[in-house]
Amino acid sequence: MHAIVLSSGGVDSTTCLGIAVDMYGKENVSAVSIVYGQKHSREVDAAKKVAEYYRVTHYDLDLSEIFKYSNCSLLKQSTEKVPEGDYADQINKSETGVVSTFVPFRNGTMLSAVAALALSIYPGEETEIFIGAHADDAAGNAYPDCSKAFTDAMALAIDEGSDHKVHVVAPLVEWNKAQVVKKGLNLKVPYQLTTSCYNGRECACGKCGTCLDRIAAFKANHAVDPIKYEIDIDWEVQ
Amino acid sequence: MHAIVLSSGGVDSTTCLGIAVDMYGKENVSAVSIVYGQKHSREVDAAKKVAEYYRVTHYDLDLSEIFKYSNCSLLKQSTEKVPEGDYADQINKSETGVVSTFVPFRNGTMLSAVAALALSIYPGEETEIFIGAHADDAAGNAYPDCSKAFTDAMALAIDEGSDHKVHVVAPLVEWNKAQVVKKGLNLKVPYQLTTSCYNGRECACGKCGTCLDRIAAFKANHAVDPIKYEIDIDWEVQ
Repeated sequence: MHAIVLSSGGVDSTTCLGIAVDMYGKENVSAVSIVYGQKHSREVDAAKKVAEYYRVTHYDLDLSEIFKYSNCSLLKQSTEKVPEGDYADQINKSETGVVSTFVPFRNGTMLSAVAALALSIYPGEETEIFIGAHADDAAGNAYPDCSKAFTDAMALAIDEGSDHKVHVVAPLVEWNKAQVVKKGLNLKVPYQLTTSCYNGRECACGKCGTCLDRIAAFKANHAVDPIKYEIDIDWEVQ
Repeated sequence: MHAIVLSSGGVDSTTCLGIAVDMYGKENVSAVSIVYGQKHSREVDAAKKVAEYYRVTHYDLDLSEIFKYSNCSLLKQSTEKVPEGDYADQINKSETGVVSTFVPFRNGTMLSAVAALALSIYPGEETEIFIGAHADDAAGNAYPDCSKAFTDAMALAIDEGSDHKVHVVAPLVEWNKAQVVKKGLNLKVPYQLTTSCYNGRECACGKCGTCLDRIAAFKANHAVDPIKYEIDIDWEVQ
């Protein structure tokens, strides 16, 4: 069995990579990072460092063409600023029912592209694609393409459309982010190499939705996040 | 309701476009063509002419990056020749269980990309994506991403991952190609503008799998295909 892990260089996908390497050994695992037109390249840089750490092959695929008509606030061409505050607040203010950081159907396009990659590099063989979607991102429908209903349906579509060769595995899909970090700490995942902040500066802003989630997940595990933040974080206060 | 039709400039997708325009009117319909690294550009040229005929907006998306590692015989980088003869014969000779003209998970990647397009150009609104997959292409598992099981699963995945905004419609999925052409002839679909041949020369070769299928479908309807062939076709003989 081959395993290809969708790797964004963040907490969730790096934990996924740790799980895949633990299950299959690094010689059977590779990582793939997707460029989708994001404002900064820190994600792919972090993903490469993580792949080097685990000594797995790293691929990248540029899907920015697919999102060229989108005004999602994470994209280069967007006129929107990345919002601050938590997701629930952002959904309440949203006109479209999803947050402005929702890259349209990103997980569907990424899984499809990696299914094509798997069938290209391992023709006639079986591959598992690992994706780090988890329950917190799907909560309140902030990111509809992170739900279990979505990953289950996508798994079936990829199974059918690949002649039953490619399987989607979403090991975190029923966990919250605190549970993801708990698993990763047990596996000694190199969180010091990861990046999550939407703003992509040298240090994490500590204020955007994804920073707030990350900080809370480490606090819930009574752990200190090893990356640097622009603001002081009190790791003792829950 | 908006409708976006996946349009390759061939018989099936052009019939789909005819159906969508008949259902929703041309002002609510657009067409999108996918470049996936194919050896020739006749498909997109034909799709543009068909869109002009129907006076619908035409988009194109270049997904060739996704297939850069594939050796599918339809792709520029492939070392394989496009085979002659029918699909059943090709499957028997195949090492991977699918035909060499199977672009890996193409329909999955195209539907995902168009779901992203729909959410980008019509945020918060509902869109139907029409795809011309039909029963003959799925037969014998020649193209596993043309089956009803595949389009049903992909429809569910896109429904979930788009916050129930984007719907996949596969009106031909239970028809054979003769039934597709029957519907198209009734709708006066401009088959003279379409192209199907895998070889992409000025006239259709009349020998590759898709030419054989196309010719048989017109014959089954006691009709003459309006495009030109390199070889003489006896349209009277079934």
